[in-house]
Amino acid sequence: MYSIGIDLGGTNIVASVVDDDYEIKGTSKTPTNSPRSAEEIFDDIATVSLEAVKAAGLTMDDIAYVGMGTPGTVNADGIIEFANNLAFNNVPARKMLAERLSKPEDKIFIENDANCAALGEAYAGVGNGAKDFVAVTLGTGVGSGIIVDGKIVNGVNFAGGECGHMVIVVDGEQCSCGRKGCWEAYASATALIRQTKKAMEEYPDSIMHKLAEQEGKVSGRTAFDAMRLGDIAGIKVVDTYIKYVACGLINLVNALQPEVICIGGGICNEGETLMKPLRRFVQAERYSIHSKIQTKIVKAELGNDAGIIGAAILGKVK
Amino acid sequence: MYSIGIDLGGTNIVASVVDDDYEIKGTSKTPTNSPRSAEEIFDDIATVSLEAVKAAGLTMDDIAYVGMGTPGTVNADGIIEFANNLAFNNVPARKMLAERLSKPEDKIFIENDANCAALGEAYAGVGNGAKDFVAVTLGTGVGSGIIVDGKIVNGVNFAGGECGHMVIVVDGEQCSCGRKGCWEAYASATALIRQTKKAMEEYPDSIMHKLAEQEGKVSGRTAFDAMRLGDIAGIKVVDTYIKYVACGLINLVNALQPEVICIGGGICNEGETLMKPLRRFVQAERYSIHSKIQTKIVKAELGNDAGIIGAAILGKVK
Repeated sequence: MYSIGIDLGGTNIVASVVDDDYEIKGTSKTPTNSPRSAEEIFDDIATVSLEAVKAAGLTMDDIAYVGMGTPGTVNADGIIEFANNLAFNNVPARKMLAERLSKPEDKIFIENDANCAALGEAYAGVGNGAKDFVAVTLGTGVGSGIIVDGKIVNGVNFAGGECGHMVIVVDGEQCSCGRKGCWEAYASATALIRQTKKAMEEYPDSIMHKLAEQEGKVSGRTAFDAMRLGDIAGIKVVDTYIKYVACGLINLVNALQPEVICIGGGICNEGETLMKPLRRFVQAERYSIHSKIQTKIVKAELGNDAGIIGAAILGKVK
Repeated sequence: MYSIGIDLGGTNIVASVVDDDYEIKGTSKTPTNSPRSAEEIFDDIATVSLEAVKAAGLTMDDIAYVGMGTPGTVNADGIIEFANNLAFNNVPARKMLAERLSKPEDKIFIENDANCAALGEAYAGVGNGAKDFVAVTLGTGVGSGIIVDGKIVNGVNFAGGECGHMVIVVDGEQCSCGRKGCWEAYASATALIRQTKKAMEEYPDSIMHKLAEQEGKVSGRTAFDAMRLGDIAGIKVVDTYIKYVACGLINLVNALQPEVICIGGGICNEGETLMKPLRRFVQAERYSIHSKIQTKIVKAELGNDAGIIGAAILGKVK
């Protein structure tokens, strides 16, 4: 059996055909060119979907269902209620896709993109089929998706899984969401860059100044690279940043005790430099100190494919 | 159909027979007299269970299954792995109950007591059958139970639902769990009393001194009563306390978007004095600002019966 997984992103629209073993058999993509009308964007979604089917050497008759991940909030009727970075407002995505792909609406599944990525990693990636799973992405913001008993936790209004907007410092740093002290405001790549810049002001002799000059900017790597060179300011920034990331992870462990938490996003390229101390923090501070079984903290492995594979299997798990 | 719900507490053992409409038809109780051996305690559990059946005018043949809520962590085999306040360590509760009540083990269900209370309120109490539900208890600590898709979130090691041990203030107040800054260290009745005492030191003229003297102690009511009398220090304590309670609630809303969060424990007797400002905070700070449907914040209504009814319906939902 085959299905189509679509990732509707702010930059690109990608569609892939996925088989029962979660393998991608054909792909096509096109720029989103947002802002455009939903009609134009959905015409392109249909085009790349058909191209992906062709690339897989199949026809639409071989496709059991179609799933799409999108930014924003999607309700039970497959309507994108709100997606800020696509300028979407109450877009009937399921209906529009069904019409354009000549499939019945009950074969079309629309879901938030972070939730799709979580589902993809849980079933086809590092989760290895884990039923209780959380995916966290440390990027511009802190995104997350929660899987309980093999299903996405959407909550009553399909806005669930926003763990980046869990406050870890009451009255702390201003977050873009309006709250103060959100995990995102301390653990995102954006926050790390802010923390790095602040340390550079405090430590004018830090090697981070030279590293940033070489790279042309302060990035999420600057402090990590400085730390590897033994720079005191770099070590301080990284230690503090990892403490913040760990704080939110332990909160999730204590609340949900998932089998696996996977961590994705650019910062993850640090690999075990990041994962090892995170595991030490979780080990030390988890509430479930008497339980032999503990949540595994691992690096995401599917990258951008997670969202596409997750979208493709929505029809199986919804 | 009838079932038995048992609440094994640090002080009392209570057993009730519950019918399909979640109504209690007969009850019996006895002191726990802990610490005693598990054998002795389970003998008494069996005795009160049989007394409850008799009080309901039934026999054990009328009982479809038996559920018990206990402090501590219970694993998939019905073994209480660890319960600090009963001095229990790997007690095979399911097996011991099955033997004593002459029921097969697959008709016996053992679960953490806070999770039972959440289940009871979700199905038979304020939840009114809500499938996505969180129960929070503001008592000596902050307890919680999470229901997703009608089932208790146990996690991989059956230690899930410990939302009281979510840090809301990095490096904040020391919590009994070992972490610093847990929600429990700011939002429990214990924390409120500590906050009240601190304010009384700062405000020697506060009416709270007189109120505490009349009551013989500083309690969770002292600051609320002072606030009602217009006392500045009392108002400050209550405002700050409610902000802390709200912070954790909004974290839960953003992560899980449950249909209902119910709040129990002694502090809840403040009723709308507590609920109204909590709802205002959640309204202002929830991430799901564009969603029409919002989590209801309500006072728990079943009191001690929540855990018993929840235990009684474990057999239906497990």
